[in-house]
This record gives sequence, C-alpha cells and structure tokens, in this order.
Amino acid sequence: MTTIDELRTIHDFTCDIARKSGEYLRNDQIRRRSVALGTREKLNAVDLVTDADTTVEKLIHDAVAQRFPEHDFIGEESYSAGEEKRFLLKDSPTWIVDPIDGTVNMVHMFPMTAISIGFCINSIPTVGVVFAPFLGGQGTLYSAIYHPEGGAWMSEFGSDGPRTPLPLVSPPPPLPTDAPKGCLFFGEWGKDRRDSPQSNLTKKSTNFINMATELGGRGGKGGMVHGLRSLGSSTMDMVYIASGQGDIMFEAGCWEWDVCAGIAILLQTGGIVVDSNPPDGLAPDAPIPMANIGGRRYLAIRGCSTNEQGQSPRVQQERLVREVWRRTERLNYERPI
Amino acid sequence: MTTIDELRTIHDFTCDIARKSGEYLRNDQIRRRSVALGTREKLNAVDLVTDADTTVEKLIHDAVAQRFPEHDFIGEESYSAGEEKRFLLKDSPTWIVDPIDGTVNMVHMFPMTAISIGFCINSIPTVGVVFAPFLGGQGTLYSAIYHPEGGAWMSEFGSDGPRTPLPLVSPPPPLPTDAPKGCLFFGEWGKDRRDSPQSNLTKKSTNFINMATELGGRGGKGGMVHGLRSLGSSTMDMVYIASGQGDIMFEAGCWEWDVCAGIAILLQTGGIVVDSNPPDGLAPDAPIPMANIGGRRYLAIRGCSTNEQGQSPRVQQERLVREVWRRTERLNYERPI
Repeated sequence: MTTIDELRTIHDFTCDIARKSGEYLRNDQIRRRSVALGTREKLNAVDLVTDADTTVEKLIHDAVAQRFPEHDFIGEESYSAGEEKRFLLKDSPTWIVDPIDGTVNMVHMFPMTAISIGFCINSIPTVGVVFAPFLGGQGTLYSAIYHPEGGAWMSEFGSDGPRTPLPLVSPPPPLPTDAPKGCLFFGEWGKDRRDSPQSNLTKKSTNFINMATELGGRGGKGGMVHGLRSLGSSTMDMVYIASGQGDIMFEAGCWEWDVCAGIAILLQTGGIVVDSNPPDGLAPDAPIPMANIGGRRYLAIRGCSTNEQGQSPRVQQERLVREVWRRTERLNYERPI
Repeated sequence: MTTIDELRTIHDFTCDIARKSGEYLRNDQIRRRSVALGTREKLNAVDLVTDADTTVEKLIHDAVAQRFPEHDFIGEESYSAGEEKRFLLKDSPTWIVDPIDGTVNMVHMFPMTAISIGFCINSIPTVGVVFAPFLGGQGTLYSAIYHPEGGAWMSEFGSDGPRTPLPLVSPPPPLPTDAPKGCLFFGEWGKDRRDSPQSNLTKKSTNFINMATELGGRGGKGGMVHGLRSLGSSTMDMVYIASGQGDIMFEAGCWEWDVCAGIAILLQTGGIVVDSNPPDGLAPDAPIPMANIGGRRYLAIRGCSTNEQGQSPRVQQERLVREVWRRTERLNYERPI
C-alpha cells in the first residue's frame, strides 16, 4: 500500500528528473543547431532515433534505480533493444518511460516533443509526468497523482513558478449533447504507410474524414468535429485531452510508454480511456472496460460534468465512445506474441 | 521609401502591440475558465468567434491609427463585417491583421492560437509579427523585418528576454534530395466539410493520404513525408516553416491576414510561397511565381542551402513545389468577386 505522502514524494522526484532530462534535450538541441545531425533509421525512415533517446532513458533509469531499487522499470529504448516483446507490466510498482515521444518532431525541431514518465501500481497509472521541454522558454510540464487526495497540474513557469490545476476549466463543462460535433479531435497518421485497402494508413484516413465530414455525410458516419489535430506525439495528444484542451484522442499503434503518464493525468481529471476498437461481443448497453495499458489502441475522452439532462459524466463519455466507434474502422495493431 | 531604421521602429512597435494583445487574451482566458463560454457561430458551427476577436482587432487598429494615421489597415473582423469582398491590398503601406488565428483552438484552450500582424509595402509583406500567447508561460513571439539589413527572430522569454535568430539552424540544411520524403508537412482540414467527390474536404483528404503513403503507392503519388501535422492555425503552420521547424505548408481556404505576417518571416529566412494550385499553362521548367497574397492558396517551402549537387536553394525549392503539385489535387478556393 502506497500512501499519499509516498506518492507525493514520487511525484516530486519525477517532476525533477523530467526537468533535468528536458534541460539535457534543450542543450542538445542548441548543439545540434550548429552541427550536422547524425541519425539512424529504424522503421522505413519515419522513426528516427537520436543518441539523445538512449542518453535520456539511461538518465531516468539510473535515477529511479538509485532512489527506488525495488521498483520495476520499462523503457522504450530498452524494450526495443530486448528480445521479450510481450506486455511486461505486472502488479508490482513499475515505471513506464518514454525518454522522447515525438522523435520525428525533435529531429525537425518542431516543439511537440515530450519526456513521458509514468508510475504504475497494480497496473494502474498512478503518477504521471509529461514534460515538453521546447514548449515555451521554460518548457511545459503536466503532472498528476491519481488518488482521492492527489491532483493534476500544468506548470509553464519553471520549477519554482506557479502551477495551474487541471482540468483548466473546473468543473469541466459537459460534453456537447451532439458530440462528436463540437469536439476537438486528436489523432495521428503514424508510421505504417503501406498502401492497401485494408492498411492502417487507409483506415486511419477513412476515420479522419468520417470524423470531419458534415452530419449526414459519408453514409451517416459524418461526425462534424470542431477540428482535427495531428501533433506527431501521442503523449501530447493525451495530455491535451487530460487537461480539457481537447475532447477526443483516437490513436492506435503507439505503446504503453507513450500514454502511461498521460493516462494518470487523464484519470485524475475524470477522463476515460478505452480500446479504440470496440471489444468483441460488447452489448450496446454494457459498461465499457478501460483500455489495456499495453493494448496499443487508445480512445480517450476528457472529463466532464453532469449535463442539463442529468446524465452523469460516465454516461456522456460512453455515449461518445460509441459514437466514435460507429464512425471508425477497426485498426490492425496488436502486441507482438 | 521606407528606411531600415523606420522598419525597425515599426517592428518594435508591432512586437509591443502583439504582446499587449496577448496579455489581454491570457487574462480573458483566465476569466473564461470560471465563467460559461459565450460564443456565436459563423459558418456551420466550426468557425467560432468570441468577443475577444473584435476587442483585439480594435486594440491593434487604434494603436496603428494613432501612430501611423497615413497607413491603410485590413483586419479580419472589419473585412468580414464589410460589404467589399475583393482583394483590398494596394501598394501603399498597409497593415494586415488577424486578431486571433486559431479561434477554434482558443475556444478549446488548445494553445495553437496566434495574433498575426503583417505590414506590407508595395504589396510585399515586409514586417511580420506572430505572437502565440498560450505557447509557454511568456508566450512565443516570432518576428521579422524582410530587408537585406533586417532579420528574423523567435522570442520565448518575454519582452526583455533573449531572442533566438531564425531559421533555428543557420545556415539551414539543404532539402532532402528525395523530398517530400523526409519532410515534415503541415496542412489543415479546414471549415468546408461538404461531402461530395469534388469537395475541398474530399480533395484535402486525398492530398494528405498521397503525401503520407509509401513511395510507389497511390499510383506513384505516394510522398512518404516524415510526418503530417494539423495544428488548426495556418498562421502557426507558416511560422514553423519560416523557422525551419517544418519543411512544407500546403494550405488553402485561409486569407491574407492568416499568412501575411508569417510570409514576411518566411521571406526573410529564405523560404518561398507559391500558389498551392499549379498556375494554368506554367511550363515544366518555367520559374514559379510567388503566391498572390490574397489568393487563398498557399504552398510554402522552408529556406535551405545549396546542396552537395550544387543546386541552389531556389532550384531545390521549385523542384519540391512541383513534387507536391504532382501529388495533390487542385482545391476550389477563390476570392469572392
């Protein structure tokens, strides 16, 4: 059993190490501005990895190992280098870390890049820290402790500056009654660029256009969302939903380290995250289970308040989940076995 | 004839008024966090306008009219309210202002919102200031004087803080030899959501998937860009290209006030902007003319250096323009007559 005081200690430690990692990345970018960029390619030239990725993961891993030697640790870089590809999360206290989410952005110096550090207990994201070191002069840090006495915050003025509680609007407004109309929708094109009728790229494109099209269009699938956003970072997509700066995140193909920290923030602000593919055999009125953290498919809906019709947040959120499912095709992302 | 000293005065005045406008918007957002949001709808619920739009345009207009009473002024809000819909830019010194670009984002508090203030001489964007008040604690300000003795800068530490020269990497790297492969591509879904085979929405969707698909895919149109980004602000798209934080902006449907300031920055950093539809009858080896500032269709390519094959920046940029044209369908945006 971890107490709220212990969680606060973990939270503050995590914020500190995220900021230190961000400082490393900012200095690294200043170096890169004057030196030719050396990168090596992973998957069909889209997924670039820089040395910074490895360095930052080691920085975070070593700090955690020294402070919490009894905790487990899952990092993107060490996972990718290892042979074991199954879902590794157990119920023991476990850190799930993406040293750099949005590496393509970082290569191009587009600021939607984040360090994502999540801490799970009983497989539930419980502390989450997301630091975007290039968003503003001091970077932007989102964090949360998922606990009745916890909290969620945004910090854009450095480690000593004031923090803004999340969600930004509190209590958060109800979802639009005709959602997804009126919603800000976040999704990514991803790395799988194969051209075939059943490819993920083709299906994602169909999903995006369905969500964008006027009501009644696309054979009734038109969702008329307020806007579609693609940032190139599923970590940032998730924190924007968690903060109430967006309404819907629909993303498949990413991994638990991309979303774990963001999910802790989302849960604390009253949001939900489910499988972006409707579970087989789920009855139309059955409660919708939470996403498998390692399932690679995530549909997140922001927190909200009871609406004028007296519908609870959960009722509104599950209705919106079904409206999104109805307008989207199932994506072919599974975990390697 | 405007001297460089006069342009510097105009630049500093513009930065100051942009920051003041941004402060107003930040305070306005803090108010909105606790009060129900009142908005009225313009075009099919996507284009929300808040009172802040009108207030900020008046703030900028009044400051300009007091300081430079002899200059002309074109603002989004006053244009929309007026009856004259033709292209208004003349050769006289003219301010072109969008008080808030990314109003949908602002309504949702997603930080890709910008105040865009451009100043034209002889119809050429000559001073440009773009301030994103919600990007970081002090906001992020991009600005330029397009002049041999001018410059371009990013400022993320407030009005007294240091400025970073643009482009961020200087000299900027050559374009990838197989561009658009390897490029970061920015484009927007826009407000026109009609569902038909020839609608702008359908064509934009086709363009996006063509740019994303693997080389050889989509009947040879696959562009295999490094990533597709949609921010919901053509102003921000343009400044990211101008800064070298992206490579290609392909956007149609926006207006001169959305891009004028960004174009001044783009030109100063060596970028080009052309019509996103290929001009009728343009020979395959003819020089490509600059976009009509009021033409509502913009294809921008970042600045670059001579490459290893000895190709000049302009040769690389025009080659990339033709590669993008080849992969995209003509969009149906014209100016009202």
